[in-house]
Amino acid sequence: MEQKMTIREVGPRDGLQNEKEIISTEQKIQWINQLSDSGLSYIEITSFVARNWIPQLSDSLSVAKGIKRKKGVRYAALVPNLKGLEHALEADIDEVNVFMSASETHNQKNINKTISQTLPALKSVCSEATAAGKTLRGYVSTVFGCPYEGKVDIHKVLTICHELFSYGVDEISLGDTIGVANPRQVEDVLELVQKEFDSSKIAMHFHDTHGMALANILKSIDMGITVFDSSLGGLGGCPYAPGASGNVATDDVVHMLHQMGYKTGIDEAKLHAAAVFIQNRIRKPLRSHQMAISNSVK
Amino acid sequence: MEQKMTIREVGPRDGLQNEKEIISTEQKIQWINQLSDSGLSYIEITSFVARNWIPQLSDSLSVAKGIKRKKGVRYAALVPNLKGLEHALEADIDEVNVFMSASETHNQKNINKTISQTLPALKSVCSEATAAGKTLRGYVSTVFGCPYEGKVDIHKVLTICHELFSYGVDEISLGDTIGVANPRQVEDVLELVQKEFDSSKIAMHFHDTHGMALANILKSIDMGITVFDSSLGGLGGCPYAPGASGNVATDDVVHMLHQMGYKTGIDEAKLHAAAVFIQNRIRKPLRSHQMAISNSVK
Repeated sequence: MEQKMTIREVGPRDGLQNEKEIISTEQKIQWINQLSDSGLSYIEITSFVARNWIPQLSDSLSVAKGIKRKKGVRYAALVPNLKGLEHALEADIDEVNVFMSASETHNQKNINKTISQTLPALKSVCSEATAAGKTLRGYVSTVFGCPYEGKVDIHKVLTICHELFSYGVDEISLGDTIGVANPRQVEDVLELVQKEFDSSKIAMHFHDTHGMALANILKSIDMGITVFDSSLGGLGGCPYAPGASGNVATDDVVHMLHQMGYKTGIDEAKLHAAAVFIQNRIRKPLRSHQMAISNSVK
Repeated sequence: MEQKMTIREVGPRDGLQNEKEIISTEQKIQWINQLSDSGLSYIEITSFVARNWIPQLSDSLSVAKGIKRKKGVRYAALVPNLKGLEHALEADIDEVNVFMSASETHNQKNINKTISQTLPALKSVCSEATAAGKTLRGYVSTVFGCPYEGKVDIHKVLTICHELFSYGVDEISLGDTIGVANPRQVEDVLELVQKEFDSSKIAMHFHDTHGMALANILKSIDMGITVFDSSLGGLGGCPYAPGASGNVATDDVVHMLHQMGYKTGIDEAKLHAAAVFIQNRIRKPLRSHQMAISNSVK
């Protein structure tokens, strides 16, 4: 039983964008190079949003151009629109990641468009990115709950997935943006999703707000999912509750998977060194269990 | 699907014994009364060890005599020997909990006896407690790994369980004392355990050191286990790594179970109030996810 599991490291984007301490371009490059060396096969390195939208990621082009590209690693970036795509193509990113929310209110607050305005915008990005030879990933956020609307209709999620796949998206990441999913809900959602889409094209993106992320990953694995998003050390935290956990921590996920006998291709010692590096730069303890243990030993 | 799950609250014993800040007898009594009011059906309120062994629990008799007994709640205490049993009987505790380790070294360091010396000692405690009309619980610790020996032979665990059940123990709690269990190991261990014993007589006692406790509980539920030990707020932490998580937090377990549609009989708001009460007394933030969220809001 040596099944392979794949981690999509989103720390440099989803993690850093929620950290206040500004990390220099050089340090980001160093960190991403360490992530590449750890054996991760996928790193979302930045977001090509407007410069003043997320100050932490305003150096996205320099970061993307500055990193050492390791063979076998796919380097991805978040791309909100055609302007962002220009920069992503200039940086010769491997994969273009588009995003939207399954909740109308969350989509409006996050993207400043309705869902029906968002879809054609993403379609043009996907179409131009495909023409440029890029692979595509689609994020659907608030799948398991919305901070403004509460419950989200799973059929809305399915409709959006159908749209995104029709735009040529290679993989869809279903996001539990506020970390409210529970294993039974994961089972219910995946049962419906898997009736319509191939499991190998679905990734799960859990946040650990209520501590259920590893349980949700376990349930997803039981359901046949093999691709998971995570942020090293739990970097980034939760924008909705500053003391709470954010993205599930890559080091905790990898540790559980390895302990269970799964292969990830990731070297835990190198991953740990990369976590210590970024922890020293953000100047506060990372929240993952692996880091809490190692911090306590010092 | 409204299956009932049972929580054995061990915070006043397993939690408090690892907290440095000394809590007064009156405050312990107040706290345990709050726990009773929250709907918990089982509270391990103290340990009748020698007075100088665990200073935090040196007032065990006064605590046990001082609390308000709520109908329907079973009040238990850890009892290491016949001397401890005298006090437990004097306090008219409902249930007597004996304990030992499946690892020779851990047992030696924790109880100062070999495993074969421990068994007859527990047998006399069980026999006298039964004669006094008390129910019995047996803890087997380091089932999933030992801080000194590493892997623990599951057949040793099974042998100890057979012994304890032959002493009249009503339930055995299998302890992941250092929080190293992973869901696959839980599955493997429970498969063997369930070949020999009735699932309804087995409880799981997980620590959250590596963040896998809720995933392990999920796997245990899938295997038919319905009784879990936990400590409110994650009180107590980890004696082997002071910054790391200890007992899985009652509030996190109850939250997950309720979200999944299980019944526990526990009122989450009252449980939260009890967590805030003890957090203020230990004068540091509790580590549960539920408390991290509520602390972040302040």
